[in-house]
Amino acid sequence: MEQFDPTLLDTLIDTLQASAQLIEIIDASGKIIIPGLINTHTHIGMSLFRTLGDDMPQRLQKYIFPLEKHFVTPELVYQASRHSLTEMISGGTTTIADMYYFQHMTARAVAESGIRGVLAQALSSAPAPDAKTFAEGTARLKALTAEYSGHPGIIPAAGPHAPYSLTAAELRETVRLAQKLDIPIQSHLAEMPFEEELIVRQTGLRPIPYYDSLGILSRRATMAHCIFANAEDRALLRERETGIAHNPSANSKSGKGIAPAYEFYRDGARIGLGTDGPMSGNRMDIVSQLNITAKMQKVRLGDPTVMKPAEILAMATIGGAEALHLEQHIGSLEKGKQADMVIISTESLSMFPIYDPYAAIVYCADSNDIESVLAAGKFVMKKRELKTLDREEIRASCTRITARIAEGFTPAE
Amino acid sequence: MEQFDPTLLDTLIDTLQASAQLIEIIDASGKIIIPGLINTHTHIGMSLFRTLGDDMPQRLQKYIFPLEKHFVTPELVYQASRHSLTEMISGGTTTIADMYYFQHMTARAVAESGIRGVLAQALSSAPAPDAKTFAEGTARLKALTAEYSGHPGIIPAAGPHAPYSLTAAELRETVRLAQKLDIPIQSHLAEMPFEEELIVRQTGLRPIPYYDSLGILSRRATMAHCIFANAEDRALLRERETGIAHNPSANSKSGKGIAPAYEFYRDGARIGLGTDGPMSGNRMDIVSQLNITAKMQKVRLGDPTVMKPAEILAMATIGGAEALHLEQHIGSLEKGKQADMVIISTESLSMFPIYDPYAAIVYCADSNDIESVLAAGKFVMKKRELKTLDREEIRASCTRITARIAEGFTPAE
Repeated sequence: MEQFDPTLLDTLIDTLQASAQLIEIIDASGKIIIPGLINTHTHIGMSLFRTLGDDMPQRLQKYIFPLEKHFVTPELVYQASRHSLTEMISGGTTTIADMYYFQHMTARAVAESGIRGVLAQALSSAPAPDAKTFAEGTARLKALTAEYSGHPGIIPAAGPHAPYSLTAAELRETVRLAQKLDIPIQSHLAEMPFEEELIVRQTGLRPIPYYDSLGILSRRATMAHCIFANAEDRALLRERETGIAHNPSANSKSGKGIAPAYEFYRDGARIGLGTDGPMSGNRMDIVSQLNITAKMQKVRLGDPTVMKPAEILAMATIGGAEALHLEQHIGSLEKGKQADMVIISTESLSMFPIYDPYAAIVYCADSNDIESVLAAGKFVMKKRELKTLDREEIRASCTRITARIAEGFTPAE
Repeated sequence: MEQFDPTLLDTLIDTLQASAQLIEIIDASGKIIIPGLINTHTHIGMSLFRTLGDDMPQRLQKYIFPLEKHFVTPELVYQASRHSLTEMISGGTTTIADMYYFQHMTARAVAESGIRGVLAQALSSAPAPDAKTFAEGTARLKALTAEYSGHPGIIPAAGPHAPYSLTAAELRETVRLAQKLDIPIQSHLAEMPFEEELIVRQTGLRPIPYYDSLGILSRRATMAHCIFANAEDRALLRERETGIAHNPSANSKSGKGIAPAYEFYRDGARIGLGTDGPMSGNRMDIVSQLNITAKMQKVRLGDPTVMKPAEILAMATIGGAEALHLEQHIGSLEKGKQADMVIISTESLSMFPIYDPYAAIVYCADSNDIESVLAAGKFVMKKRELKTLDREEIRASCTRITARIAEGFTPAE
């Protein structure tokens, strides 16, 4: 490598300082700088339920539904979102795509945190914690969209839950509304083992073609999971330029399966990584997803040479940007894009030696190696200190809520 | 929960101090204490090669063999072992089972570190970095056994590499030698996709029954991997009380497959967790194996309720002790056993909330949450500060070696 002349840097700094154009020098020598990590699917309002009922049979019925019925309030969603954001930022995440209830409270938390969010108001036929009907849900969506119109960091979105939880008419209305409001759509698709048989029986179409028949699949849409996607399904998602949020940690923990992420990536689909919610994947940082993404694909295909470290890191950055149709603005360190950047330390014991920085990040790093994080050119974490969120105050606020849950919750029979 | 009267503790402390029986008070309030973690299979002498050639085709031929031929010296093994031990201790590991070349140098490093090691001198038919012949390997094994006879922390062991890398006569001789020296045996078994066909063709037996026919499977033996183990193979290992070292991170990264760890555990086999070597699984801490162990089994069986957090933690502690036939001495916090203990902090962002401490350790923790580690009642790490190994000096010594590797190594054509 050519020797760098440090006097040139000094001259540049002097010139910039003289012209008052220099804001700050960040010394990252010996460190690794990557684009901000993108979490394409999560439910951050659920973090105060984490570790409740992990691995229990009928967890949805016995734990999640009763918890949501009794404890999900605007205040819980706000505090849980703030807690999740501390963990996400300290793991290098600068953009999230989220779907949950009382999404205006998540939007408030994300706006305060200084990172970016594509934030979907959840919609379903059945009564939800924040909406007795589908119409109440769409009313919330309209209010959210109005409230954050023109906000630099918040993109409101429609969140129809899944093919099996809304009627075809409601799904069509969601598409019309998203077009009218000019907002993205997020949904769960081809995730559930029962889903394919049910949708084929009801509609004659597999879930992915069924969504396409309703006009959902487009450059406006990001579909979470897509575990049960055959070659035709994959081609359809690619042709429609629909984003795919791949959640290997959650999908394996729930025993559902391993999505064909390698094939999506290889064929040029818009695929990024997601943690899913904190009751599903538990950890909220993307760094912890890199390793498991690689290993699940290699073991599924019986081939150690697929899904190489550089490809995994691409999925976690530019791939995530493409999945959210934001690749003009984020996902890589390029002139004209937002300065979402992560500085990774190489001091920890697992980060030595480093012959290949991609392999070190994917196979050796954990979120504690993330040293500093900038979103839109501003520090949201600097040398492990959070700059926009007060970690102690958030922990204290959340502890008041979790104490009530620990005392008041019993699983359904 | 009944209210604890803190004056009782004060009285106890006063009494013990008056009788000079009190050594030290460790305040672990709000923290989690678990038995020391046990790594049942690794090759710590390889850590200075980490991230070289990850995911490359023919990595064994193009990277590992040339690296071992040109760079494996006693000094490299010693320094690489010391580096690995810093990472292992700071991840809560108090016992390792290792197999590699120049094992006397690994033994020196483990003895200096203050943790425990079952340390196997590698044996094979082919020339190795430390032995031109099988006989030279057994001579090294005899010397290692003599050197560490009666050492409280080091158990020398025989390490015949695999069914396909020694002759039947050499394997039989290894068993006789292990019996004579009264030492354990470690080997790789049912790991390679080619292994089963080869051994069946050569011997008419599957690899696991073949090893049994040579007398290897016994209470003296710990077999790494056992990926390709059918119901009869599993029953045989269980009946022989042979230990199994399960390495899900390495086995998935190499695309080989997922061992039937759940079935082994459910049926009462002696199964523990291992990282495998740092070129295979990369990370050397057992905490990072817990999560992937659970998820690989769930996705393999399509069932989220198998391999629950408490079972995973059992595998990483008492299961590891059983796999190494040391359950009388380590693996649980019980009167009469060694005081190998780990104190886990609950301060980090991912360790909140904790309704279920087992789920928090398995799905939310990482090695940075390990606060203090005691081996045989002595701190080897206290509040993240290593007490027996000098991390800065080790990094400097290792950097001198890795610089030579980075400069001098080119992959084979």
